[in-house]
Amino acid sequence: MEKRRFALGFDFGTNSVRALVVDIATGEEVGTSVYNYKKGVDGVIVDPVDPNLARQHPQDYLDGLEASGRGAIEQAKANCKDFSPEQIIGIGVDTTGSTPIPVDAQGMPLGLDPKFTNNPNAMAWLWKDHTSYEEAAAITAKAAEIRPEYLAKCGGAYSSEWFWSKMWHCLKVDPEVFEAAYTWVELADLIPGLLTGTQAPDRLKRSVCAAGHKAMFNAGWSGYPDKDFWAAVEPRLVRIRETLPDKAYTAGERAGFLTEEWAERLGLRPGIAVSVGAFDAHMGAVGAGIKEGTLVKIIGTSTCDIAVAQTNMPDVPGVCGIVDGSVLPGYLGLEAGQSAVGDIFNWFVRNCVPASYEEEARKRGLDLHQLLTEKAEKQKPGESGLLALDWNNGNRTILVDVRLTGLMLGQTLQTKPEEMYRALIEGTAYGARVIIDRLEEYGVHIEEVVNCGGIAEKNPMLMQIYADVTNRTMKISRSAQTPALGAAMFGAVAAGPENGGYATVQEAQAAMGGLKEREFAPIPENVKIYEKLFRMYKELHDIFGTKGYTANLYHIMKDLLDLRDAVREGREID
Amino acid sequence: MEKRRFALGFDFGTNSVRALVVDIATGEEVGTSVYNYKKGVDGVIVDPVDPNLARQHPQDYLDGLEASGRGAIEQAKANCKDFSPEQIIGIGVDTTGSTPIPVDAQGMPLGLDPKFTNNPNAMAWLWKDHTSYEEAAAITAKAAEIRPEYLAKCGGAYSSEWFWSKMWHCLKVDPEVFEAAYTWVELADLIPGLLTGTQAPDRLKRSVCAAGHKAMFNAGWSGYPDKDFWAAVEPRLVRIRETLPDKAYTAGERAGFLTEEWAERLGLRPGIAVSVGAFDAHMGAVGAGIKEGTLVKIIGTSTCDIAVAQTNMPDVPGVCGIVDGSVLPGYLGLEAGQSAVGDIFNWFVRNCVPASYEEEARKRGLDLHQLLTEKAEKQKPGESGLLALDWNNGNRTILVDVRLTGLMLGQTLQTKPEEMYRALIEGTAYGARVIIDRLEEYGVHIEEVVNCGGIAEKNPMLMQIYADVTNRTMKISRSAQTPALGAAMFGAVAAGPENGGYATVQEAQAAMGGLKEREFAPIPENVKIYEKLFRMYKELHDIFGTKGYTANLYHIMKDLLDLRDAVREGREID
Repeated sequence: MEKRRFALGFDFGTNSVRALVVDIATGEEVGTSVYNYKKGVDGVIVDPVDPNLARQHPQDYLDGLEASGRGAIEQAKANCKDFSPEQIIGIGVDTTGSTPIPVDAQGMPLGLDPKFTNNPNAMAWLWKDHTSYEEAAAITAKAAEIRPEYLAKCGGAYSSEWFWSKMWHCLKVDPEVFEAAYTWVELADLIPGLLTGTQAPDRLKRSVCAAGHKAMFNAGWSGYPDKDFWAAVEPRLVRIRETLPDKAYTAGERAGFLTEEWAERLGLRPGIAVSVGAFDAHMGAVGAGIKEGTLVKIIGTSTCDIAVAQTNMPDVPGVCGIVDGSVLPGYLGLEAGQSAVGDIFNWFVRNCVPASYEEEARKRGLDLHQLLTEKAEKQKPGESGLLALDWNNGNRTILVDVRLTGLMLGQTLQTKPEEMYRALIEGTAYGARVIIDRLEEYGVHIEEVVNCGGIAEKNPMLMQIYADVTNRTMKISRSAQTPALGAAMFGAVAAGPENGGYATVQEAQAAMGGLKEREFAPIPENVKIYEKLFRMYKELHDIFGTKGYTANLYHIMKDLLDLRDAVREGREID
Repeated sequence: MEKRRFALGFDFGTNSVRALVVDIATGEEVGTSVYNYKKGVDGVIVDPVDPNLARQHPQDYLDGLEASGRGAIEQAKANCKDFSPEQIIGIGVDTTGSTPIPVDAQGMPLGLDPKFTNNPNAMAWLWKDHTSYEEAAAITAKAAEIRPEYLAKCGGAYSSEWFWSKMWHCLKVDPEVFEAAYTWVELADLIPGLLTGTQAPDRLKRSVCAAGHKAMFNAGWSGYPDKDFWAAVEPRLVRIRETLPDKAYTAGERAGFLTEEWAERLGLRPGIAVSVGAFDAHMGAVGAGIKEGTLVKIIGTSTCDIAVAQTNMPDVPGVCGIVDGSVLPGYLGLEAGQSAVGDIFNWFVRNCVPASYEEEARKRGLDLHQLLTEKAEKQKPGESGLLALDWNNGNRTILVDVRLTGLMLGQTLQTKPEEMYRALIEGTAYGARVIIDRLEEYGVHIEEVVNCGGIAEKNPMLMQIYADVTNRTMKISRSAQTPALGAAMFGAVAAGPENGGYATVQEAQAAMGGLKEREFAPIPENVKIYEKLFRMYKELHDIFGTKGYTANLYHIMKDLLDLRDAVREGREID
């Protein structure tokens, strides 16, 4: 009997890194391990004075890479008697992003240098760091003036979460770090570089997913934005531009082969193929079975929405990124997202739920999310009279604006915590609907939605609300670890048929992916009510989120009360 | 030595009735007692399906009258050795309102009839019952069409909280009760009627405060709205109109003299003068020292703002009522108010504060209001980036609209409970400012603000915020029981000089009233910041609360964040 073959996927998240060993013929997940970052608050270095700051220490990445990889392999050995580490044929890596890291001329993160080890500016600038909003606005303004084509591919605005904004902010607030950095790399590039010994800037194969979605890289205009552009924005950025290559790579291509050093640290054989990296959401979308007509929603603390489309489609305003080959080779990858989803629910549970609920949850052995969901499930749509905007962490798509905040309206003296909790969930569903509507408007037809992530798996009420608000069936990825699974798929593709892997991503998806049986179909009477509520949401969305939009909102509170009363009295909703 | 003389004041509140024995020469409060109503939830009959319903059982009033009166007298005996019940020379009564009660031809509440005792429609329709909003809108519409002068005195809209709306709603939902009622009386009329045996509709001296502020009574147009008007609104209301007198009375006039029966029940001598009744806020304003140029704010679950003005002033749009003699004889009484103040803070504390805070409060022996206030006190104005509308129970002044609801905006993932708590307090301060601005705009100059009620006494932070938002010094009434004290003042005036009482309300105020020493002066740097925040509040107020108002709100969240950042960084606010 032929030996089973496996791939190893690494998923570098916001608070931890996960490794996953997957059978490449069946998708069976035979071993996994999570390493929680040790520094800061759950792995995030924060600043008590500046809520915009979020950094990560590179040492956490190295420690996590080794510990999670070893842990997953140990578990695979324990679980599966026909597994041995030699049967791992390829490695894939996904990470958060844009998470740029200042590195020296050898490609080593400055944060590993004892001189800088306690300086947050020398660490990784985590995706959710929003310190650079002024720089983002300035880049957007200059691009609008002299390079509008740059903006067209990233939704019309360059974000404070992204590569160039963060470098520029570092230059302003910490010139010493800026000067010490030879260049900056994305975390998605750093890890494959380290594993394969290609981290030196002149050898590093940078991910087109990271470069295209976050750094305005486009093969159509010879790579990264040109030097004249940076000279017009901030001449000291030209030096960084000069360190960046003209070419970037799609995941599935080989970054290189596993070094002796890392083979030993992980307990693997050296020379295994390692794929070029990509972002967690993009590899997660592949793990969830992305194809044309499918929107993959990765619902976590924030949400990432990924679609693919033919390469001849128009630009989509407000959609964060459109990059050739960023998800699947030969297709445009489209990335959209909501800046906070699970984060909003967690914020609510931590800050807004009374002791009596906590007591009830404790007695009944539930967590607060479960208790609130159980209570909220009993409500009919519209019955609370509440409406919430989901902007507690800004709006990524379609407004591309971090300086937006949350809003809830409709509170009375009878409003209960579970009603507010449900209103926040509904707010995120409306936010999801805005994204789908925008994609459809520009010709990206969305036939099905596949959801991934713990929230999608654990909260059927949320899935039903999403189905009712978007009027589309919600499906759920079979794997609970789609980013790591997607990374493993890319590991199998990087290995290639010559090493027992796959020639295409689609072959890997067909063998290793799948959906759960339970789906959530829209319920027509709920769809009708949510259609009304969504129109009100959209009005608030436009008036608070759009510069020129003018309206009168007198009807909003009244329409909500009328709808509430009609639902409570069981009247027909027209 | 001459014997001390005392007056007895009764204050019928939302959840309880209080009696207070006061020395009429010094204002010393020698005995008090509170009776908590027994029926429903804290004395309020509610309907789990209809949050608008709020009723009260008349038996609670009778039981409370006797128990609180006896209790206060017992305490006075115990506290004060030169007190005996014979030295009480007059009684005054204030109540909530509009709290109309259906009564039979002898003036007895239908709710006391065993046939109706469990029917909420036969009970007192508590001031905060909002079931009648459709009737209120229809009365407003018809009055606007054929009797615009009626509306001019009640802020431009007839309210669902008021007399006629409630009767009409009863007619619609429970014709049997409507038909069984000979007429309807206000609670403020019922109690003096019972005490003096004048409760029969043809003998009852109805309060001009209740009739004028809640039932469109005006001596200038021969009393209550005419029969032709009601024939046009709803012909079956004409029968009720025919039971109503052409004259109504100012408090301080005698309703009559204490009956043998009630003298015995209370332990007093019969024949004591009993004043015509009035609403709690109006008598409270008198107890707090109301005069021209003084705004009295009675801050409780809701807020009532009372001012007096010369009788030649114009009508003030959106100010609930302008009634000759409703507060002080010879002056127009102006009533404004906020539909919820303490109620909002209580709602927040019950529904929105996490267990960790409750635990901290318990350990430190604080209640949650104290703990949140302590934490909120450390914040600078503007530092949270939050802004709230105070409409969780609608808006009484200046929008006169119960179908408005709460709103909070500016939440981020870092927002803390104490920031939301403070934002809600600030929301009520902005609401208070809107009222002052409107009065000033129409020539009612407000030189000083005197605050009454537990919140004003117990929460210096709230008083400071009110001072900073309104840019006026906040003073506090010396008595903690200004409504009951005001009622006692009116008892002393009803007794008159011939019985050892006073000839005028002003004399009673001079002898029995006073202020606390501690005042709250506006802090200039806070005033500057709150001026900015108030302008944003006003914009939300106008766009959500005014039919024709159109605006763009794009700047609101951004201005709040800019202000937040400037305050946090200690930058100068221009």
